[in-house]
Amino acid sequence: MRYEEFTIEGRNAVIEAYRSGKPIDKLFIQDGCQDGPIMTIKREAKKHDTPVKFVTKERLDQFSETGKHQGVIAYAAAYEYAEVEDILEAAREKGEAPFIFVLDNIEDPHNLGAIIRTANLAGAHGVIVPKNRAAGLTAVVARTSAGALNFTPVARVTNIAKTIEELKKEGIWFVCADMGGTRMYDLNLKGPIGLVIGNEGEGVGRLVREKCDMIASIPMKGNIDSLNASVAAGVLAYEIVRQRLQ
Amino acid sequence: MRYEEFTIEGRNAVIEAYRSGKPIDKLFIQDGCQDGPIMTIKREAKKHDTPVKFVTKERLDQFSETGKHQGVIAYAAAYEYAEVEDILEAAREKGEAPFIFVLDNIEDPHNLGAIIRTANLAGAHGVIVPKNRAAGLTAVVARTSAGALNFTPVARVTNIAKTIEELKKEGIWFVCADMGGTRMYDLNLKGPIGLVIGNEGEGVGRLVREKCDMIASIPMKGNIDSLNASVAAGVLAYEIVRQRLQ
Repeated sequence: MRYEEFTIEGRNAVIEAYRSGKPIDKLFIQDGCQDGPIMTIKREAKKHDTPVKFVTKERLDQFSETGKHQGVIAYAAAYEYAEVEDILEAAREKGEAPFIFVLDNIEDPHNLGAIIRTANLAGAHGVIVPKNRAAGLTAVVARTSAGALNFTPVARVTNIAKTIEELKKEGIWFVCADMGGTRMYDLNLKGPIGLVIGNEGEGVGRLVREKCDMIASIPMKGNIDSLNASVAAGVLAYEIVRQRLQ
Repeated sequence: MRYEEFTIEGRNAVIEAYRSGKPIDKLFIQDGCQDGPIMTIKREAKKHDTPVKFVTKERLDQFSETGKHQGVIAYAAAYEYAEVEDILEAAREKGEAPFIFVLDNIEDPHNLGAIIRTANLAGAHGVIVPKNRAAGLTAVVARTSAGALNFTPVARVTNIAKTIEELKKEGIWFVCADMGGTRMYDLNLKGPIGLVIGNEGEGVGRLVREKCDMIASIPMKGNIDSLNASVAAGVLAYEIVRQRLQ
């Protein structure tokens, strides 16, 4: 699959994409564009919670594959998002305690792809991502997921903290990785579990962290601060796998 | 070595370079950047008498090899490769059983950087890479290593299989990850150990695999073949960390 297949350029094309219900991950609009079609696109973006970025014409020209962006380029999701309920259903179908990855603003598409790949192989039932800021399901994500995106459902929610709150009512416990937590080997991670992975630079947001039942720390011996986000996700996921296998 | 190999890009990477005492020849900072990390870098620059030039974002974009300079690019002395003996010496100095990463042709610089970062945090004493084909210590590697390249020695050897052979005489056991191996939890990984990570597409080469004392498998539940190489390295490294902590 090529990258271009996921960009939509030009006013009509973008409006049509919204009308046909295609999920748009991100929208780039030329600074100062105020005409009718652009206003329509802005309204659609607001209605669908699409993150919008205003950029110079030169920037859009750089992004453009067709050279005919008419002041607007949309990045569409390469894959369809699932619902949180689909993830719970997948666990029920397998007769397993739910194991869910919750990504609190992973921004790098390589990390997102690698984490979806890990989620699939660690036997997680799905991945939850937020609508804002975070990387969407682009071609890069699809490629770095090594095909896992075809098997592991990814649900997108407006508010991660609220979603955690709701899932706790279903009996799921949430663990996030953060410094100053309990050594991961000393936590009980065997039951229904949501593994929360924070942003590459900032870690887990305060509001999300406060919703978590457990804070896990990965033992660190070195001179630097933290593991790469997708490596940290892998290390924690496999501690959960190890405990579940016992 | 080419020019790019002398640039350090991104805030954390530059701050870490200063902290580790790496000589910086010149610093380019984006006009108008005033946030905390940039102020820290400016202070370090003053302290170390580094010439600083303020340039536009467009100019930095042009200089950038990684596309992710975050407003700062430093030109530094090249990363020097260490010798295998330096790695063994590092273990001796700490009074620890050697723990070495051996990378059998990791080609993606993002993976190489992430693996060096993991090696540092897992307490490994160094990383061995082959001279041929594999990724070198470029700006992308430095940045994705998040500064670990300043602390963790990387030795480059002509023949990985021969180096393993020699290190076995020093009492080091080698484990590689491959399908059909023993579940990693069931292996004894506590002693002096070399962790061998294979190429992204092809895994561990036959000759190298034959030199290994143990073949470890990571339990896989999903629909796809394998973890990302840097995630697999992290999962295995932390199984070694777990066993050593017991």
